Amino acid sequence: MALPTAKELTEYLHAHIPLSAAMQARVMLCDGESAVLHAPLAPNINHRNTVFGGSASSLALLAGWTLLHARLTDAGIRARLVIQEHTMHFRRPLEEAFTARCDLPGAGAWERFLGGYERKGAGRITLKAVLRCGNVDAAFFEGEYVALAGR
Amino acid sequence: MALPTAKELTEYLHAHIPLSAAMQARVMLCDGESAVLHAPLAPNINHRNTVFGGSASSLALLAGWTLLHARLTDAGIRARLVIQEHTMHFRRPLEEAFTARCDLPGAGAWERFLGGYERKGAGRITLKAVLRCGNVDAAFFEGEYVALAGR
Repeated sequence: MALPTAKELTEYLHAHIPLSAAMQARVMLCDGESAVLHAPLAPNINHRNTVFGGSASSLALLAGWTLLHARLTDAGIRARLVIQEHTMHFRRPLEEAFTARCDLPGAGAWERFLGGYERKGAGRITLKAVLRCGNVDAAFFEGEYVALAGR
Repeated sequence: MALPTAKELTEYLHAHIPLSAAMQARVMLCDGESAVLHAPLAPNINHRNTVFGGSASSLALLAGWTLLHARLTDAGIRARLVIQEHTMHFRRPLEEAFTARCDLPGAGAWERFLGGYERKGAGRITLKAVLRCGNVDAAFFEGEYVALAGR
């Protein structure tokens, strides 16, 4: 198999998660180690003319999801990939177009995730994502994703 | 002042937070003690034909925000009301239209929130919201909101 391209991943998101299209979210990069998603301000604006917290949280969640989806696709695995819990911490408002970047953690996290999926039909992994606006780290996400076998 | 009606609150959200309109989120109830928001499945669906986690998180976030916004409006206070951090825990997938319900906590939480705003220009409050689908509690949200004086 091969990693899907950024364009293919964007099309997949827009086709299957209409809110990602409403957000005009785009996959900028997904090389298997990192995923970077971008969204403009206008469709994600709030009453304060900054980014709506739900949009920020959604883009971060999608960054982690996209990275895992791409790697599982590359590995030829069709799992049900869901988020179990997540946290967001906002340090400052996001005042313009923004990105969410998720890097795969080291120290065997991917191997444990795959191993759990293959042995028990349920692999778990915790991913972090950073929301940036301009050159500033503005918000921080952490999510626990689960890949489930079957269906 | 008076509490805004559910219809006015829905219109406010759709006018100022376009993602809430894309989600087709509606305020069903806001009586000053509780806020209940509703969203249909179709605009919030994901690749598994269940509710996208970002939509669930957004509706919960909006339930707490709406409750505080309505009470502050009723009290004649125009604060900058933002979310500082939040957590979501999914117990099970949301498979159809869903609601988010937020109840104002007791034990003087509102009074401390208002007191902080009035004395220090920054009031904080932690709100919980429950996501329901059918008659099942499917996900749980907790968010810390801050009301800031001035723009």
